[in-house]
Amino acid sequence: MKFTILFGGASYEHEISIVSAIALKKRLKSEPRFVFLDAEGDFWLIPARKMKSNHFSSGEYRKGERLTLATGGFQTRGLLKARRLEGVGTLLNLVHGAQGEDGTLAALFDFYRIPYIGPRKEASVVSFNKWLTKLYAEGLGIPTVEWQLLRVDGSRELDFDFPVIVKPLRLGSSIGVGVVHSADELDYALDVAFEFDDEVLVEPFIEGIAEYNVAGCRLGEGWSVGRIEAPGKREFLDFDQKYLDFARTDSVEEAPIDETLRADLIEAFKRVYGHTFEGALVRCDFFVASGRIFLNEINPIPGSMAHYLFDDFEGVLRSLAGALPAERTIRPDYAYIERVQSAKGPKTGSGL
Amino acid sequence: MKFTILFGGASYEHEISIVSAIALKKRLKSEPRFVFLDAEGDFWLIPARKMKSNHFSSGEYRKGERLTLATGGFQTRGLLKARRLEGVGTLLNLVHGAQGEDGTLAALFDFYRIPYIGPRKEASVVSFNKWLTKLYAEGLGIPTVEWQLLRVDGSRELDFDFPVIVKPLRLGSSIGVGVVHSADELDYALDVAFEFDDEVLVEPFIEGIAEYNVAGCRLGEGWSVGRIEAPGKREFLDFDQKYLDFARTDSVEEAPIDETLRADLIEAFKRVYGHTFEGALVRCDFFVASGRIFLNEINPIPGSMAHYLFDDFEGVLRSLAGALPAERTIRPDYAYIERVQSAKGPKTGSGL
Repeated sequence: MKFTILFGGASYEHEISIVSAIALKKRLKSEPRFVFLDAEGDFWLIPARKMKSNHFSSGEYRKGERLTLATGGFQTRGLLKARRLEGVGTLLNLVHGAQGEDGTLAALFDFYRIPYIGPRKEASVVSFNKWLTKLYAEGLGIPTVEWQLLRVDGSRELDFDFPVIVKPLRLGSSIGVGVVHSADELDYALDVAFEFDDEVLVEPFIEGIAEYNVAGCRLGEGWSVGRIEAPGKREFLDFDQKYLDFARTDSVEEAPIDETLRADLIEAFKRVYGHTFEGALVRCDFFVASGRIFLNEINPIPGSMAHYLFDDFEGVLRSLAGALPAERTIRPDYAYIERVQSAKGPKTGSGL
Repeated sequence: MKFTILFGGASYEHEISIVSAIALKKRLKSEPRFVFLDAEGDFWLIPARKMKSNHFSSGEYRKGERLTLATGGFQTRGLLKARRLEGVGTLLNLVHGAQGEDGTLAALFDFYRIPYIGPRKEASVVSFNKWLTKLYAEGLGIPTVEWQLLRVDGSRELDFDFPVIVKPLRLGSSIGVGVVHSADELDYALDVAFEFDDEVLVEPFIEGIAEYNVAGCRLGEGWSVGRIEAPGKREFLDFDQKYLDFARTDSVEEAPIDETLRADLIEAFKRVYGHTFEGALVRCDFFVASGRIFLNEINPIPGSMAHYLFDDFEGVLRSLAGALPAERTIRPDYAYIERVQSAKGPKTGSGL
């Protein structure tokens, strides 16, 4: 089974995606191919030996082979004629943030009928917009932390006491996120968040709340769920810390929790994943307070795809590639148009 | 201002889209261009004089000029070299159902930076999936009819008394929808609905409920809202009736309702539209019972875009084309990668 790792993208997480792809390369034993999507929207074939960050930051990648999307995969530009790129196999969508996680690339792959591991359009929209994530989770009976939605042109009156956490509605990797301890810090934190989105989510910030991350995927009738991780007890992961997080290549120990909580977290994970996230390996971040599990966020393309939580990560990828959701093929039969045409008679049929 | 009408698509509403485009052509005074998306995913330039339904049902369109997507618009295939198609202007997404209304084409236009009138990715997903529509509306404080979600492999036990209405979760135009009056009709109706989607929504069916359709769009600071329509009091519009509905070219009278209800319906419409549906001319179908307004569904690309509800439909399109939501342009600056590289020193910088 061949994999092609797609990374980059026109997003604030462009650099994170490069780091994530380099980390994944180190982890995979089989040699995947690499396709870089630059910020201009051009695709580039990257030889494995060039998978170093300065190949991209220097712009050197542009001397390589440019690709265009075509039905079933990519084309390279031959001298006179476009040529199909062979051996793409299953695409691994590793474009974090905009484009990769907002449904854009999912739609492109669906449209061009390219098999891919990653969230589909619905899953992307539901996880990318943090307000929709809350509606979705609560629609499934899974509580989330209470919230308030502010708009760039609206009131900044808060419903909650300090401290609060302020998040741009549609960004991942903690970009633009701030914890606000008092009223005089609020405007600055909101100004920062509104740099990234016209809508900002405000939640009460709960100091030292227990946090657990569960990653996995549905594989046909079964599931693969990784070790449950209890992320470090920093106030929250800022961009630099998250960045290093995306680069990690070491393995992670299972969180020391009792069997009941473990089972409940996995049950909550499966309910969130449902059928909506089929085709993706996702990570759900949960809070636990007073014995209740709250969904914090859904990360449909975790950094390096959270390989460090799985013993046989390549085996999971292979199984997932064999269990991708099928798109319904719809072919119009023109039955209605023909019925109208024949009712009108052969001569006037063209009048519709 | 030039418009290019895009229609067709790999969807159960393919034929409806053709009829819709032909009806819109009759209504527009300026001469738009036409691009047909066939079920195979190929785009074709269609001369205005060929806009007859049998041009498509016969497959004759394939003798015309094929187009491919490229940054900023379409390309035609010249003899040796691809040539940019000039004069596209603003695309008008008239692909009803899958692809057009599920976010696929929105994502393509976003990716290739083609200006378009039509729902964006989030708006598409939220309106295409009827369960998400309910979560979205209720999240905005607008009630919807109570519901139950069934899966093709799950229980068929109902929470409601008959009659109920059964709807595939992700289809428009009444395809696969059935009203079920008694238990012995249920299995057949569900089998039909499951032909189209693995998930089916069941709602109590309220005989003779008052129904009102409101269409419009946000234009910067202002709004354009069409005449409110009270659709005919048939049990529900089946596919054939809806089909004729998409072909209509006549104008529609304002529903005879009092000023309070009118204002409340428009207020509900604006709340649903919010900022999510910016760039699209949408129609919301509401129920009114015991003085309360319920959202039934959001149609983000109504048949022929509901031109029959507007006096100056072309004026609305022109204003909308001038008020399309701006995408944030994100250009990575590689600041982080460069920082890491310089910390490592010039010689080892390539180690990341």
